[in-house]
Amino acid sequence: MTKKFDLIAIGRACIDLNAVEYNRPMEETMTFKKYVGGSPANIAIGAAKLGLSVGFIGKLANDQHGNFIRQYMNESGVDTSNMITDDAEHKTGLAFTEIKSPQESSILMYRDEVADLYLAPEEISEAYIKETKMLLISGTALAQSPSREAALKAIELARKNHVKVVFELDYRPYTWKSKEETAVYLTLAAQKSDLVIGTRDEFNSLENSLSGDNDATVNSLFQHSPELIIIKHGVDGSYAYTKNGDVYRGYAYKAKVLKTFGAGDSYAAALLYALSKDKGIETALKFGSASSAIVVSKHSSSEAMPTVTEIEALIEEQDGGK
Amino acid sequence: MTKKFDLIAIGRACIDLNAVEYNRPMEETMTFKKYVGGSPANIAIGAAKLGLSVGFIGKLANDQHGNFIRQYMNESGVDTSNMITDDAEHKTGLAFTEIKSPQESSILMYRDEVADLYLAPEEISEAYIKETKMLLISGTALAQSPSREAALKAIELARKNHVKVVFELDYRPYTWKSKEETAVYLTLAAQKSDLVIGTRDEFNSLENSLSGDNDATVNSLFQHSPELIIIKHGVDGSYAYTKNGDVYRGYAYKAKVLKTFGAGDSYAAALLYALSKDKGIETALKFGSASSAIVVSKHSSSEAMPTVTEIEALIEEQDGGK
Amino acid sequence: MTKKFDLIAIGRACIDLNAVEYNRPMEETMTFKKYVGGSPANIAIGAAKLGLSVGFIGKLANDQHGNFIRQYMNESGVDTSNMITDDAEHKTGLAFTEIKSPQESSILMYRDEVADLYLAPEEISEAYIKETKMLLISGTALAQSPSREAALKAIELARKNHVKVVFELDYRPYTWKSKEETAVYLTLAAQKSDLVIGTRDEFNSLENSLSGDNDATVNSLFQHSPELIIIKHGVDGSYAYTKNGDVYRGYAYKAKVLKTFGAGDSYAAALLYALSKDKGIETALKFGSASSAIVVSKHSSSEAMPTVTEIEALIEEQDGGK
Amino acid sequence: MTKKFDLIAIGRACIDLNAVEYNRPMEETMTFKKYVGGSPANIAIGAAKLGLSVGFIGKLANDQHGNFIRQYMNESGVDTSNMITDDAEHKTGLAFTEIKSPQESSILMYRDEVADLYLAPEEISEAYIKETKMLLISGTALAQSPSREAALKAIELARKNHVKVVFELDYRPYTWKSKEETAVYLTLAAQKSDLVIGTRDEFNSLENSLSGDNDATVNSLFQHSPELIIIKHGVDGSYAYTKNGDVYRGYAYKAKVLKTFGAGDSYAAALLYALSKDKGIETALKFGSASSAIVVSKHSSSEAMPTVTEIEALIEEQDGGK
Repeated sequence: MTKKFDLIAIGRACIDLNAVEYNRPMEETMTFKKYVGGSPANIAIGAAKLGLSVGFIGKLANDQHGNFIRQYMNESGVDTSNMITDDAEHKTGLAFTEIKSPQESSILMYRDEVADLYLAPEEISEAYIKETKMLLISGTALAQSPSREAALKAIELARKNHVKVVFELDYRPYTWKSKEETAVYLTLAAQKSDLVIGTRDEFNSLENSLSGDNDATVNSLFQHSPELIIIKHGVDGSYAYTKNGDVYRGYAYKAKVLKTFGAGDSYAAALLYALSKDKGIETALKFGSASSAIVVSKHSSSEAMPTVTEIEALIEEQDGGK
Repeated sequence: MTKKFDLIAIGRACIDLNAVEYNRPMEETMTFKKYVGGSPANIAIGAAKLGLSVGFIGKLANDQHGNFIRQYMNESGVDTSNMITDDAEHKTGLAFTEIKSPQESSILMYRDEVADLYLAPEEISEAYIKETKMLLISGTALAQSPSREAALKAIELARKNHVKVVFELDYRPYTWKSKEETAVYLTLAAQKSDLVIGTRDEFNSLENSLSGDNDATVNSLFQHSPELIIIKHGVDGSYAYTKNGDVYRGYAYKAKVLKTFGAGDSYAAALLYALSKDKGIETALKFGSASSAIVVSKHSSSEAMPTVTEIEALIEEQDGGK
Repeated sequence: MTKKFDLIAIGRACIDLNAVEYNRPMEETMTFKKYVGGSPANIAIGAAKLGLSVGFIGKLANDQHGNFIRQYMNESGVDTSNMITDDAEHKTGLAFTEIKSPQESSILMYRDEVADLYLAPEEISEAYIKETKMLLISGTALAQSPSREAALKAIELARKNHVKVVFELDYRPYTWKSKEETAVYLTLAAQKSDLVIGTRDEFNSLENSLSGDNDATVNSLFQHSPELIIIKHGVDGSYAYTKNGDVYRGYAYKAKVLKTFGAGDSYAAALLYALSKDKGIETALKFGSASSAIVVSKHSSSEAMPTVTEIEALIEEQDGGK
Repeated sequence: MTKKFDLIAIGRACIDLNAVEYNRPMEETMTFKKYVGGSPANIAIGAAKLGLSVGFIGKLANDQHGNFIRQYMNESGVDTSNMITDDAEHKTGLAFTEIKSPQESSILMYRDEVADLYLAPEEISEAYIKETKMLLISGTALAQSPSREAALKAIELARKNHVKVVFELDYRPYTWKSKEETAVYLTLAAQKSDLVIGTRDEFNSLENSLSGDNDATVNSLFQHSPELIIIKHGVDGSYAYTKNGDVYRGYAYKAKVLKTFGAGDSYAAALLYALSKDKGIETALKFGSASSAIVVSKHSSSEAMPTVTEIEALIEEQDGGK
């Protein structure tokens, strides 16, 4: 059966307000540039730019920021037919980025009463989910009700319809009530996913531990649905574990870092693209790292998403004759 | 390995205020008698009275009603070491019962800001759960945070430690936000349980359907953890389905009905007792029905819980030479 | 112009559940008797029993307890045409009384999401308020929105229509967020009232002080609307201050005390009756004290409200030839 | 007695994010410039720029936006010693401005859980209020608790210490729950103020009416504390009413309008300056109109506040030989 979509992402689509004047504290930044942001939105935009057929399930504020997001995602080639407009005056999430130096950047978030967390389970369409090969959930969608229940229902419908579930842990402390609560839901969702992607710190949050061990993590999750688990260790690269016991290591590419945010989203977009195209896990890790190296050198997360040509050029350049 | 407890129940322990003058609308009832109530508390008390070794995990208001519950459960032989006292001025849940006629009774609930729904995941002790053979979850514990996360964590810890999970659906609409939300969590918990007990209506809530079919229900759940599913059809008796395809039917016993509440709790207590004692599914269904027939003829739910002798006498009397 | 009502009270009408077995901790009380309760409801019932023409503005839960209150107040002669039925599943406030000894009694309150605090300003009828000589506000009505705004609007409408405003401070800490907030609203309401009644402790709450002084209190309030201020000092009796500088002292009558609650409400009812009948301040203080002495010797607050004959008999008996 | 401050303002100090590319819908604006905003902050900054000695009472988010506001107000000459830093992760209010055309502009507000509305009554210093000649309250401070109680307490302390209370109605529907609630608090505050300033629409909100009449409005308010009432009618100018019956009319000056927001704040700042300097009501109205005409022709509200010289120049230019 042919599916309409390679990937449907579910969760938040927000606004990034990136410092126009940077390498300074935000107090001294007087101008901000507007971009679409939010992990699953960035991944969807990135994957579409790489050529995948992509859809999105989410809820948008009924205002100019919501309109802008819909329009931008449409223009990026993402199907927005299941991006619902909120009717209860919720707002678009905002992220003001502060870039003090390449090593030191931070984000000032506006996440109170944001529309994306009001996506409700009754708004999830089984017919839409049936049309995709992969469903991408980002952890933040689980942080509050009713988005939490919408995401859990989407996972259930994906499993029922043999759609692969990809879970990007995407742990952002500010939207969660407690570490215990976080661990409960990240665990529930990871156990029901086919592919789980996160940093080592994010897997620690899933386990409510301070310093977890990759082997213990994958042994525990492989007792459930996951077939492939990617654990990222920053500049030390990433590891891919498969249920049948294979381990792959990916290395970080050199980059002229402007800021670090956007790295994880571009990594996921390129990794999923490569897996979709059956390029194998090893190449998928390279795609992820290369895409990430490109985005951290640019000003935005969404608009900076690279093309396949750019990714392959960077891999060729840095891996050379290897 | 010998376990300290046959059964640990988790969830609410409340106060029933039963009409002293009945067969009339509550407006005309001027006096109310106080009992311990709440489905898992009733089941724990009932199981202890039948001779099982029983513990309880819950949160009690820091007031006279909370004190009374702890004291009564202790006297009933239930271990209350994991019944935590709330420190945030939450209240004890109340249920005023109205008994207009044997056919027509209703309950006026006080469930706003009740202590039991504030049991938090960090208050769940893995060491305690390890000590039991069975963990009983009642559906209402899943209705609100943080009790919801506490119950989900308890299930996870039970599975990890090979403790059998019993899930009594116990669906009470007034504590839930929506039918969709209910279906999400009842499904999640049922999939992770070994034994699921509920009325046909409660399984419909789990499925968010109006009229479900037993075969479809059990086929769906048997793809996950459940080994045994009990679906109750009121006066038409109950059905027990096993994962390997056996079906047993239980019949209701005749009873002089005073009111219908308490029926499900006494059923569960006696069924779990019989299963614990390896009496077989057929006998367990009889125990459940007999226990239920006894409680509906009495004024309370908790205090009315029968002994093994009473149950066996009723079975003997009504099944006769069969 | 003849007015239809001598008194309209605004605020809560609740249920008292009084210990049937008393002189013991509530944990050992197994039966509770149901009465109408709540300060302004008690005052309204008491005033009606004394022969005043009385109305009530409030909001009742849409359940059996709400029905009972309406019915009981109707039967007591209180006009309930402006007691609105809540349509949002709020509950009737409850007060379980514990009577350990005549000196030691306490109340276990259920005040979360109670219907009376959901009376909204748009539900206040100027036409109804116009029909009364006096409007009685009790402080608890100011504790939460929207009841707070309803009460403030009622005061404004009363002033506009030259209706005397009586403010019974009725300070109950459990419904208020902070002492500062309490002081703000008790002060606002007292400044706009003609008659203010409270215990010395309650006036301290109005002033957010630990130990206020009667002279300072009345000097401050007499700069605003009040004409008469009654400050109660428990067994030491009460003082009435008039704007033109007169001071009257009232003495407590001897009583065989069963419990202390209900004392303030019966005091207010009889005082307002006497003032309505132009019996003078001195007699009004006696009426208040006598009514109070009668109610503390009985089991309920509302049902125990005395008649004029009973009050006059007690005064005659204890004041004797004086 | 010499006072340290001519004016202390209380309420919100926020961030305006003004469209850099304008004369288009906000969806097409990609860059935003950051300014301090919020009615009382603008008035304080404007008054300081005109040479008054100004203080501010408010609560700032503990983040980069909060820091920026404090720094900017300090640099503008406003005393920020009573601007408290929030310790509960509340946010700075935001206003994204959309300028479609000079006639058509709108604001997209972020006002959920903003720090300014968490100013609490216990944070109001009587000693600080004593040091000013005028206290300016803006209506939005009354929209939610605990800021509402803080503002009511500040008014009470001002009256007690013979500080003139200026009330700028500043009605913004999005922070209020209902029109009824708005009317209750605007009325309460206006009755206790010496000077009340607002548009005709804002006075309608105070009265919860659709179309009020100036004479009725001032007759009603003059029964309470107000001595001077300013009612603004947009391009038709404004009226000043005094308690002793005088009426003054102010006319709008011609302006090259870029956007309309900021007009009211600059009006109030200049009016209060002129009244402080005893220039008389007639001149005060001119100062208000002139200041307003200057600000609507510029990009920001706060930074655009004019100097006395600029105001006098505009009056001279447009009033000419009159």
